[in-house]
Amino acid sequence: MKIAIASDHAAIDLKAELRAYLTGLGHDVSDLGPATAERVDYPDFGYKLAAAVAGGDADYGVALCGSGIGISIAVNRNLACRCALVSEPLSAALAREHNDANVIAMGARLTGIDMAKACLDAFLTTEFGGGRHAGRVAKLSNPAC
Amino acid sequence: MKIAIASDHAAIDLKAELRAYLTGLGHDVSDLGPATAERVDYPDFGYKLAAAVAGGDADYGVALCGSGIGISIAVNRNLACRCALVSEPLSAALAREHNDANVIAMGARLTGIDMAKACLDAFLTTEFGGGRHAGRVAKLSNPAC
Repeated sequence: MKIAIASDHAAIDLKAELRAYLTGLGHDVSDLGPATAERVDYPDFGYKLAAAVAGGDADYGVALCGSGIGISIAVNRNLACRCALVSEPLSAALAREHNDANVIAMGARLTGIDMAKACLDAFLTTEFGGGRHAGRVAKLSNPAC
Repeated sequence: MKIAIASDHAAIDLKAELRAYLTGLGHDVSDLGPATAERVDYPDFGYKLAAAVAGGDADYGVALCGSGIGISIAVNRNLACRCALVSEPLSAALAREHNDANVIAMGARLTGIDMAKACLDAFLTTEFGGGRHAGRVAKLSNPAC
């Protein structure tokens, strides 16, 4: 799959580790930055990632910052994105099964590398359940309804 | 403080318990529904809660669904809301300190009642840190920047 990954400075090491992990699994990974540890603003990279997913350049996105909170809010500003902030695999699986999430967010200062990999595994291997969930997911792209 | 609380059917019991807890702490709590356990769509109640916070009817919002994921995405569609999905108090405090979050989301099927109360306590007693965080928070209301 085509997977885009982005972070802020606080999550640059986790981004590098997960990029390597996903590449090792055979995915086509685009690293949208940042490229250095210089301080940046997480919304900028959240919006960049959201645009990549919304535009079809990536099937899924991985969004990382210190807590995962800020960048998850930023990604969810884009109506084409459904970003789930998770810290364990059950939530990562439910995000796909119930919410058809296309972006997963995690906090580099809160979630360790092996847990983060387990969350990615659950996210990438769980299918959307459809059925009663489909109408709810559709409403997430139409806040006026 | 004026606090609005909303959920879907999966979180109606947690909503009642947290409503009573917040009322007991002296807060002015508005329960935006649902009033029964009949199946509903979480986006409807997420949007309703977001509108209450955005319109100033509530200082803070509490958003609940089965995992917390779906309703947190819905609330974050509103540019005036910064909704943090949390499962432990450190994230709840960071949401206030770093992201000036005005809505806290939790998952009724994943987070127990005492942990949920501890998250609320951390959220409601932590001040926004301002400083370097302020510019980033401002960008969350302006996705075009």
